[in-house]
Amino acid sequence: MQHDTLLLELFAIFVWAKVFGEMFEQLSLPAVLGEILAGVVLGPYATGLVIPSTTVFSIAEVGAIFLLFTVGLETPPKDLIKVGRQSLRVAMTGIVVPFLFGFLYLRLRGDPAHESTFVAAAMVATSVGITARVLADMHVLHTRIARVILGAAVFDDILGMILLAVVTGLASAAGIQWLQLSVLLIEAVGFALVMIFLGPRLVRHMRPGLERMSTQNAPLILSLAICLGLSVAAQRIGLAAIIGAFFAGLAFAEYSPEWRLRPRVNAINEFLAPYFFFTMGARLDIRVFRGQIIVAAVIITFLAIVSKVLGCALPLLRDGWRDGLRVGFGMMPRGEVALIVALVGLNMKIVSQGAYAIVIFMTAVTTLLAPPILRVLFRDLQEQEEPLPQTIQTQEAPRLG
Amino acid sequence: MQHDTLLLELFAIFVWAKVFGEMFEQLSLPAVLGEILAGVVLGPYATGLVIPSTTVFSIAEVGAIFLLFTVGLETPPKDLIKVGRQSLRVAMTGIVVPFLFGFLYLRLRGDPAHESTFVAAAMVATSVGITARVLADMHVLHTRIARVILGAAVFDDILGMILLAVVTGLASAAGIQWLQLSVLLIEAVGFALVMIFLGPRLVRHMRPGLERMSTQNAPLILSLAICLGLSVAAQRIGLAAIIGAFFAGLAFAEYSPEWRLRPRVNAINEFLAPYFFFTMGARLDIRVFRGQIIVAAVIITFLAIVSKVLGCALPLLRDGWRDGLRVGFGMMPRGEVALIVALVGLNMKIVSQGAYAIVIFMTAVTTLLAPPILRVLFRDLQEQEEPLPQTIQTQEAPRLG
Repeated sequence: MQHDTLLLELFAIFVWAKVFGEMFEQLSLPAVLGEILAGVVLGPYATGLVIPSTTVFSIAEVGAIFLLFTVGLETPPKDLIKVGRQSLRVAMTGIVVPFLFGFLYLRLRGDPAHESTFVAAAMVATSVGITARVLADMHVLHTRIARVILGAAVFDDILGMILLAVVTGLASAAGIQWLQLSVLLIEAVGFALVMIFLGPRLVRHMRPGLERMSTQNAPLILSLAICLGLSVAAQRIGLAAIIGAFFAGLAFAEYSPEWRLRPRVNAINEFLAPYFFFTMGARLDIRVFRGQIIVAAVIITFLAIVSKVLGCALPLLRDGWRDGLRVGFGMMPRGEVALIVALVGLNMKIVSQGAYAIVIFMTAVTTLLAPPILRVLFRDLQEQEEPLPQTIQTQEAPRLG
Repeated sequence: MQHDTLLLELFAIFVWAKVFGEMFEQLSLPAVLGEILAGVVLGPYATGLVIPSTTVFSIAEVGAIFLLFTVGLETPPKDLIKVGRQSLRVAMTGIVVPFLFGFLYLRLRGDPAHESTFVAAAMVATSVGITARVLADMHVLHTRIARVILGAAVFDDILGMILLAVVTGLASAAGIQWLQLSVLLIEAVGFALVMIFLGPRLVRHMRPGLERMSTQNAPLILSLAICLGLSVAAQRIGLAAIIGAFFAGLAFAEYSPEWRLRPRVNAINEFLAPYFFFTMGARLDIRVFRGQIIVAAVIITFLAIVSKVLGCALPLLRDGWRDGLRVGFGMMPRGEVALIVALVGLNMKIVSQGAYAIVIFMTAVTTLLAPPILRVLFRDLQEQEEPLPQTIQTQEAPRLG
C-alpha cells in the first residue's frame, strides 16, 4: 500500500528535521539551518536515505504557505505607521542597494536576466527573527536602534513581497517590457495597499458575524480559508502563492492576539514547516558546489552582507557610523523568504541548481554570522542602557567588602 | 503547473466543507455530517464539481491520524480508574451486543465473513461528542448518569480500538484461525495496556529532558513525532495506523492541559479534518443506494440502535429502565471512528461500496436521532437536579406578583 510509505516518510522526515534542528539549537545555531541540512544530508543528492515523494513536496508547498501566513500575522499594519519614516527609509535603501549589487554582479558574470533578477530578489529579504532573539537575549530590545531594526523589518517584508511579485510576473514574460513591468508593479502595490488598509477593516466588519457563527473556532477557520483563497488568487494574477498568504496574514494581524490565531497557526507550522525546510535541503545538489559556483557563492554572500549593511546604514549616517553598523548588521540575516524566492525560481525552471545552491549558501552564512557580530556591536548599548542592575551591584559591593 | 491545481483544490474543499458544516450547525445538526455531505454532493459520484486528487486523499489520511490522536488526547488513562466498574460494564456489553447483532445479521444475509466483521466493528464505536454537547446544553453533565455515559465512552474508545486491531489483523489472513486471533488479541491488548500504564510514565520521565531542550514547543513536537511514529509502528505490526495515533494521544493525555497540546493539535485538526470528511463523502457512490442496500441500511441502522441501547442498558437494569434508556441512547451516536473503520475496510478492498454506504447511513442516522431522544429522556433529570435556579425563581416570583 502506498499509505504505508507515506506515513513512514512523514515520520522519518519530521524526526530527522527536528533532530538536526535541535542539534543546531544546542550549538546556538538557528534550527532552520539544521532542518535544511537534514534534507541535504539524507536527501537524494547525498546519502539518499530519505527521498521525498511528490506528496511530501506538495505538503512542503502547503507548509511554505502557512510559513508566510505566520510572517504576515506578525506584521500588524497599524504598527507600520508607528515605526515611522526612519524605518521605512532603512527598509527601502536596504532593499534597493542589495538588489542592484546582486543584479549587476550576476549580469556582469553573464547570468541570464531572469535568473539574475531572482537571485538578486533573494538577496533582499531580511529575516529579523535571529536578530530579534539575539537582541532579546542581550536585553536591548527596548533601545531606539532595536526599534528601528524591527520597524524596518516589517516594511522590508512588504517591500520584499512586492519585489517578488514583480520578479515572478516578469519571469513569465519574454524579456523586460516596461509597460508590463508597470502593470505588475501597480498590481503588487495595489494588492499590498488593499490588504494593509482595507484588509483589517474588512476583518473588523466580519467580526460580529463571526461571533454569531455556530462553528467553533470561526475566526481560525475564516483566516485559514482566506489564506488559502488569497494564495490561489495570487497565483491566478501571476504572483507567487506565498504572496497571497503573506497578505492574508497582514489582514488578520491586528486580531491575531484577540482570536489567539498565532499560537494555533504556529501549531500547524510546527507540523508542516519541517517538510518545507527538509525538501528545501533535499533539492540542493551539493555536487554543484565546486569551482565557479563556490567563487560566485562567496562573492554573492560578500555582496549580500556589504550591500545590506551599506543600504541600511545609509539613512542613519548622521547618527554616527556605530548606529549605522548596528542597524545594518541587524538587517543582515536572510531567512525563509530568501529561500522561498529561490524555490519559486527553481520550480519555474528559471533558477538553475547552481544559483539555488548560491542562495542557500548566502542565507546560511548571513544567518550564522549575524549573532556573533550583533553581540559585539550591541555590547556598549547593553552596558549603557542597563544602569539599574549595575547600580544595585555597586551599592551592594561595599557591604560585602 | 500541478501546484496551481493543488492549492485551488485545497481551498475549494476547505471552503465547501466548512460552508456545509456551518449550514448543518445552524440547523442544530452535527457539522461533521455537513462536511461529509459536501463531499457526496460535490464529489465524483454526484455533481463531480470537485474531484479530490491523490494528494488530497493522502492529506485526508493524515487528517484521520490527527483526528484519532485528538480522541486519544481527550482520554487520560488515570480517569479510567475513577469512572469505575459500572462504566466498564456498560462499555463492554455495549460493544459485544452490537457486534454480535451486526455480525450475525450480515452473515445470515450472506455477506462474506471479512466484510461482516468490518461492518459489525463499525457498529460498535460510540462517538460521545454529540451526547456530551446535548447534556451540557441541558445542564445535566454533573448527574451520575451523565458521568456513567462519559466514563463508558472512554472505555468504549479503547475497546473499540482493540476490536479494530483484531479485525484488521484478521482481514489480512485467509479465514479465521484461532491461534492467529489469539496472537492479535494479545498484541492489541498488549499495545493498549502498554500505552495506558507505561505511556504516561514514559512521558513523565521525558519531562525534565523536554524542558531542557532548546527547541521551542518541544512537548508539541515530541507528541507529533510519537503520533506519527506509533502510527507507522501500528501499520508495521498489521494494525490500522489510526490505532497507533489513538494510543499516542492516550500517553500524552495526562500532560495535555499543562503543555496546552489540545488547542494546538486541534488547530492542526481544524485544517486537516475537513479533507478527511470531504473525501469520506466523495468516496460514497450514492448510486448504490437502492433496493437491497436501502433495506440492509435500514435494518443495520435499526440493529445498531437497538443493540447499543440494549447492550448499554443491560448492566443498569436494576437501576430501573429509565436510567438504562438514558445511558443506552447516550451511547447510541456513532461518529468518526465508525467512519474510519469503514474506510480502512474500503481501502483494504474488504468492504464493498454498498457496505461502505450502509455504515455512513448508519452513522448519520444514529447521530441525527440522538439529540432529540436525549432531550426527552433527560428532561425529568434536568428539572429534578437543577433546584437552585428554580428556588430563586419561586422566591422572586411573589415580589413581582
